[in-house]
Amino acid sequence: MQIKSSYNVAVVGATGAVGTQILRLIEERNFPINQLKCLSSARSAGTKVVFKGQEITVEEAKPESFEGIDIAWFSAGGSVSKQLAPAAVERGALVIDNTNAYRMDPEVPLVVPEVNMNKAKENKGIIANPNCSTIQMVAALKPLKDRFGIDRLIVSTYQAVSGAGSRAINDLLNQTKAALEGKEVKGEILPVGSLPKKHQMAFNAIPQIDVFGENGFTLEEMKMIRETKKIFDDNEIAVSATCVRIPVVSGHSESVYIETKEDFDLEEVKELLAKAPGVVLVDNPSEQVYPLATDAVGKLEVFVGRVRRDVAVARGLHLWIVSDNLLKGAAWNAVQIAENLTR
Amino acid sequence: MQIKSSYNVAVVGATGAVGTQILRLIEERNFPINQLKCLSSARSAGTKVVFKGQEITVEEAKPESFEGIDIAWFSAGGSVSKQLAPAAVERGALVIDNTNAYRMDPEVPLVVPEVNMNKAKENKGIIANPNCSTIQMVAALKPLKDRFGIDRLIVSTYQAVSGAGSRAINDLLNQTKAALEGKEVKGEILPVGSLPKKHQMAFNAIPQIDVFGENGFTLEEMKMIRETKKIFDDNEIAVSATCVRIPVVSGHSESVYIETKEDFDLEEVKELLAKAPGVVLVDNPSEQVYPLATDAVGKLEVFVGRVRRDVAVARGLHLWIVSDNLLKGAAWNAVQIAENLTR
Repeated sequence: MQIKSSYNVAVVGATGAVGTQILRLIEERNFPINQLKCLSSARSAGTKVVFKGQEITVEEAKPESFEGIDIAWFSAGGSVSKQLAPAAVERGALVIDNTNAYRMDPEVPLVVPEVNMNKAKENKGIIANPNCSTIQMVAALKPLKDRFGIDRLIVSTYQAVSGAGSRAINDLLNQTKAALEGKEVKGEILPVGSLPKKHQMAFNAIPQIDVFGENGFTLEEMKMIRETKKIFDDNEIAVSATCVRIPVVSGHSESVYIETKEDFDLEEVKELLAKAPGVVLVDNPSEQVYPLATDAVGKLEVFVGRVRRDVAVARGLHLWIVSDNLLKGAAWNAVQIAENLTR
Repeated sequence: MQIKSSYNVAVVGATGAVGTQILRLIEERNFPINQLKCLSSARSAGTKVVFKGQEITVEEAKPESFEGIDIAWFSAGGSVSKQLAPAAVERGALVIDNTNAYRMDPEVPLVVPEVNMNKAKENKGIIANPNCSTIQMVAALKPLKDRFGIDRLIVSTYQAVSGAGSRAINDLLNQTKAALEGKEVKGEILPVGSLPKKHQMAFNAIPQIDVFGENGFTLEEMKMIRETKKIFDDNEIAVSATCVRIPVVSGHSESVYIETKEDFDLEEVKELLAKAPGVVLVDNPSEQVYPLATDAVGKLEVFVGRVRRDVAVARGLHLWIVSDNLLKGAAWNAVQIAENLTR
């Protein structure tokens, strides 16, 4: 895209869990903005948001909304992106899309700046932001893949409810309050807002994020599998995932097992992680130091710990990877792409 | 042991999270009891418990407490078992020990009735009850190991706080209440009561259960690894584990990846699980049916779902295994051993 001194930007889904974080980030980081449009579905239009002390009225997103816009961040659901991202591109905007709508489109780069920022420049108007659970995993694995190669990955996730949006957070908090008071606990959103059945999330672990496919894997699990291959540009890597929602507000944790292609030295693994961009090594078991979701909230980095060699398999490595799913897993990765392209 | 019409039994740790469940089970299941002694540390001695409508005063456990006792269930911590189990055996009692004290002792059988009840009869006075997270995994895997063989296992756990005792439950509930009220959250017990550092458990995932060893694995993880080999009587099986505490009161969940020796048919896997003793297949993804910790609480069985073939590895199989950690994971397994031996 054309480098300018400042940009006309739009945030679609400005009142949502991710949109709110995008606004906060571009404010705090002084993203060079000429004009800011806050857009949403008809339902949230009319809401006010505050940006740099000024009140902005959220407008309903329409094709015309994108006239004169340079950069549009979309995080209002896949159907909104499918409907409006092409209209934004037609009007000359670069779309950075946080939904699942275009991630596996071969014409659309799927970008994690620490891994494949080079791909972003090949965009044809849309750049896709990967799924939250994928982003933090590939960011941490990148230096290890470069150095030792990776044959396979087996991940089990411990995902926060904020990944399912603001209403899911309220659902968890209301359920938790009811459970503590000994009242009936009734789920309203989770595990999947669009599906009929609701399960208790308070004091529970739900092994379903998004809908199930024919092969018994959920869409979230298949996202981790497919997106990892695409981001690493490696169809040979064997990936499998079990995605689980737990009663955490924000901050996804992941138990990741890796089999490298070449032998590794454990100290070198730690050194590589310690100096990797966007990654923080938090690993001192004897002092009970390891990444925790509650410590990661509000931070931009990916935190890695519990680094250890498998007890049975020589090239087996275990990691515990934690990041704020709304930031590096969504808003920050999307803003970071724009920062890199406008620099 | 000698079959009698009724037994003199002792519950050591009668006021604890597991001891309470043992008392409830032997009451509800009408275990044939002649005399019941409720024992504990000096700290809890004098407490009253109710059994079949009668108040029983908990006495301090001493070597003499076991005079005339036929069966003694120990769940008052490893040091109490180390100190008093030999005294109980000397006095003719069969000790069923729920602590880590004797599990890896080659003279002591480590028993899950569905897997290796035959070993229980080889006891020399002590039978060890395995770790909670191990029991539910091996019970579910037994029919699959018998039919297809198992080369390797990689497990990530989602463990409830009740595994750390009654005080850990209060710790979680107090923290959760404080967090909901916007007050400072201060951990008092978790992750490990005996270690100095405390972490927030409310709305968090803590990748530490028990102390760390030199190889970077926790004792809980090494328990799963070593105990699985011992229970299956198979030193070749490759096992690795990541054990994580999550904000659940009771009910451990496990994401288990299995590589079988022989090819398997997925429908046959489900049939084997459906008819395995002590195991309930809960697996209907299209109806959002899978095992949940909140559904498992209070039940004696091990619940298995999310049964699916790995997308990359032909003999790779994924399962989601859930059970009440205080029941099949502790009290019920211990009572079940006694029921089997006295039948």
